[in-house]
Amino acid sequence: MKRVYNFNPGPAALPLPVLEKAQKELIDYHGTGMSILETSHRSKEFKEIVDSANELMRKIYNIPDEYKVLWLQGGSSTQFFTVPANLMAEGKPAEYVNTGVWSKKAIKEAKFYGHVNVVASSEDKNFSYIPSEVNFNDNISYAHVTSNNTIYGTQWHDYPKADVLVADMCSDFLSRQVDIKKFGVIYASAQKNFGPAGVTAVIIRDDLVDRKKNLQTMISYKTHAEKNSLFNTPPCFSIYMCKLVLEWIKSIGGLNEIEERNKKKSSIIYDAVDKSNNFYKGHAEPNSRSHMNVTFRLPSEELEAECVSQAKEKNFVGIKGHKSVGGMRISLYNAVEIEAAKAVSEFLKEFQEMHTG
Amino acid sequence: MKRVYNFNPGPAALPLPVLEKAQKELIDYHGTGMSILETSHRSKEFKEIVDSANELMRKIYNIPDEYKVLWLQGGSSTQFFTVPANLMAEGKPAEYVNTGVWSKKAIKEAKFYGHVNVVASSEDKNFSYIPSEVNFNDNISYAHVTSNNTIYGTQWHDYPKADVLVADMCSDFLSRQVDIKKFGVIYASAQKNFGPAGVTAVIIRDDLVDRKKNLQTMISYKTHAEKNSLFNTPPCFSIYMCKLVLEWIKSIGGLNEIEERNKKKSSIIYDAVDKSNNFYKGHAEPNSRSHMNVTFRLPSEELEAECVSQAKEKNFVGIKGHKSVGGMRISLYNAVEIEAAKAVSEFLKEFQEMHTG
Repeated sequence: MKRVYNFNPGPAALPLPVLEKAQKELIDYHGTGMSILETSHRSKEFKEIVDSANELMRKIYNIPDEYKVLWLQGGSSTQFFTVPANLMAEGKPAEYVNTGVWSKKAIKEAKFYGHVNVVASSEDKNFSYIPSEVNFNDNISYAHVTSNNTIYGTQWHDYPKADVLVADMCSDFLSRQVDIKKFGVIYASAQKNFGPAGVTAVIIRDDLVDRKKNLQTMISYKTHAEKNSLFNTPPCFSIYMCKLVLEWIKSIGGLNEIEERNKKKSSIIYDAVDKSNNFYKGHAEPNSRSHMNVTFRLPSEELEAECVSQAKEKNFVGIKGHKSVGGMRISLYNAVEIEAAKAVSEFLKEFQEMHTG
Repeated sequence: MKRVYNFNPGPAALPLPVLEKAQKELIDYHGTGMSILETSHRSKEFKEIVDSANELMRKIYNIPDEYKVLWLQGGSSTQFFTVPANLMAEGKPAEYVNTGVWSKKAIKEAKFYGHVNVVASSEDKNFSYIPSEVNFNDNISYAHVTSNNTIYGTQWHDYPKADVLVADMCSDFLSRQVDIKKFGVIYASAQKNFGPAGVTAVIIRDDLVDRKKNLQTMISYKTHAEKNSLFNTPPCFSIYMCKLVLEWIKSIGGLNEIEERNKKKSSIIYDAVDKSNNFYKGHAEPNSRSHMNVTFRLPSEELEAECVSQAKEKNFVGIKGHKSVGGMRISLYNAVEIEAAKAVSEFLKEFQEMHTG
């Protein structure tokens, strides 16, 4: 069986033990004589999976009692309109920080529901930094940040304060310790750090679940909160996979260990960049650097293309940068092993040596 | 490996060869060195899966060129509001036929977007029939029917005519030949006849894709039609599974063979009901009977409970009726084998003999 070094920006690497378990029980789930793919979402077996995923998430993130965990569909792109649909209050604007393409998309959808203020932006420098000292106004519906910006390789390290802080944590959910109490809503699709594509986790404070009345049933957080994410048929297999990944996170030591590993992995790559005498030039400003996505340029586009091509031959997958930044992007989500970071860092050093004197 | 007779109403049985293939390639997809669960939705491999799923669907259903196939998230419940959001035109009502719980849910969501007329209903007899001679008015936004009603075991055999006929085919999609040209929009989540939970297929006529301007991005059919269902990260694994099921449908002879098998399976059960001297009493009126879900009562609730319990011991799973009808419901979606229908029919005969003189 071949396994590559998978640095895909998402859908991304999953832990091998999780894949092995899923493969083993794919046809006969726990002796039921059917696949989990064929199992009713109303069955005892599936209820155990959802309950267990909820409990693991609560434990791993230390989620306070006054928050609900929801498992929804449609990705963060669907949350971009679901959040304002549920949270925008009459006459109170929403405030957003614009840290890149995904923030912009969120801002665009919020405007369907009310007035939006963009209180800070890093667009002036191609989103290479996280604005500092962001102050949200009082009397707003909510404040919104994009926690990690995959394209640019930036990440919030200190979140700003707001009564209702909403965070798109699509690309750094469950990648480090977070004080959930600081947030009103956190949303994240699974396919980067905690599962396959097809399911989106939402952590929401109880007082926000039912803020807006008379919403379309499937758009309302209340619908899903009241039914433990089982109002309609959920994306069963994706939730099952998330549960397996959560078990894996717990088994290796929880978010302490995960955060440690992610910092280590990113520092291995940033070191290679920083010690390259400007052969590799990081895109993100040092104090805004992401532990999830390391972005950098090479001296020329020709060298960048060659680097991607050589990397591929050596089984490094998914390291080409996004077109908005160019160059390389190495994504180091939870399931990427430290070994993989070391290997790609060695490769980068060799590539540099080969192309400098 | 244990395999039960799976009559689940959905998520439901999948073809064993499909599960075996998925299991085999779960960790290393086609020699890429990664799972399809870890593969980018922008990769060549995943593009091939979507393109192939589209092509298979078009071929199997003989879909005319002027229709698009979309792969969306959120289930039929999400389509309940997505359809009116996209199709409700100013000053033109939508017309619905109410054939049960799912029609009612669709009607409720449509009212968020405009005026709704319920032009026919079978609620007077607990939805045991499909209204005949339904006439939709001219100058409406669209007309809506629920093609198959799982709870009651009824199914449309001749669809009424409308300029824009919308069908919720959640529970009989790809189960029989359908003349797609009669429809404006068809939607169906996969977990009954053509895949696992987590993805919803939409077939939509080109002139309807862009009827409503200025919609939230993810709600607009145009968004997904323009990007070949890859606007944002789709539910990759569910689409992959649908592709495998579509290949299986094609391999056994397409919808001709599927329809034949489904008719045969349902007739085996209806025969047992009809020849039971009223021990088993069918819920649906004979000319409205579904080939997907056979619903019937027993002489008492005690016998019904005993029948469910004995069935379980014999590895017949998922045959308890929905609480709105009671009794038994045997769901016979595409992947349920004729052998399974025969076996449960034998069981029903034995159960009857045991409980009559």
